[in-house]
Amino acid sequence: MGFKVKVITQGRCKESWLNEALADYEKRLQGKMEIDWVLVNTPKELEEKAMKETFLIALDLKGKTLTSEGLSQKLFMEWGTRPSFVIGGPEGLPSEVQKKASFSLCLSSLTFTHQIVRLILVEQLYRALEIEKGSSYHK
Amino acid sequence: MGFKVKVITQGRCKESWLNEALADYEKRLQGKMEIDWVLVNTPKELEEKAMKETFLIALDLKGKTLTSEGLSQKLFMEWGTRPSFVIGGPEGLPSEVQKKASFSLCLSSLTFTHQIVRLILVEQLYRALEIEKGSSYHK
Repeated sequence: MGFKVKVITQGRCKESWLNEALADYEKRLQGKMEIDWVLVNTPKELEEKAMKETFLIALDLKGKTLTSEGLSQKLFMEWGTRPSFVIGGPEGLPSEVQKKASFSLCLSSLTFTHQIVRLILVEQLYRALEIEKGSSYHK
Repeated sequence: MGFKVKVITQGRCKESWLNEALADYEKRLQGKMEIDWVLVNTPKELEEKAMKETFLIALDLKGKTLTSEGLSQKLFMEWGTRPSFVIGGPEGLPSEVQKKASFSLCLSSLTFTHQIVRLILVEQLYRALEIEKGSSYHK
């Protein structure tokens, strides 16, 4: 497996539609990218997990915005093959995690549920692969 | 029914998870806001429908970004009770539609599938209501 992406997030996934949507994208990623979901219960646990990572990308309203092409480029050219994303809970990200992050990415100026952030992230990872391949998925 | 929001979009919804997710949010909106989905097949049809609207909001990568609070304020204070949103297909929005729009809204600098845009939009409409009510959904 070339690419393995860890996603650390607080909060369970109760919505069956989200599990179905994530499974759909993970199936498309099969053999190309593996997603390792780390679901935690508290901000403390989130911080503990995030602080152990080598290359951490924080999803943060105060982060930088990227286009999908820009994200694809960073993913394949700059972030190595073991990037870890961290998504904050309702309280946002602990400040230690913000400081630790090698990159802070703002998906949107709008606030989303963490469930929708998970869906957006997985779709963007799939899109990044398709951009890299030059397929017609992203046009 | 006080609020009725029309959403004009190109492309069918094949994903069962999306239908489930949209139904979930529409159930939460029940009695407060009605969503009228207008699904069209071609850019020409999209243009025809959009040009008939009184107050049109274009979802456009080149539009303005808003926070969820800003969107809530525009929705309840500025856009009237019959706003219509238009989501472009893979070719983007026809230029006549871009010109016709009273407001152009950029959800993100990232490119999303139109399915994910539909989900984001409905969740933001629900969030806008909760912000207006001052509930704990948005914090």
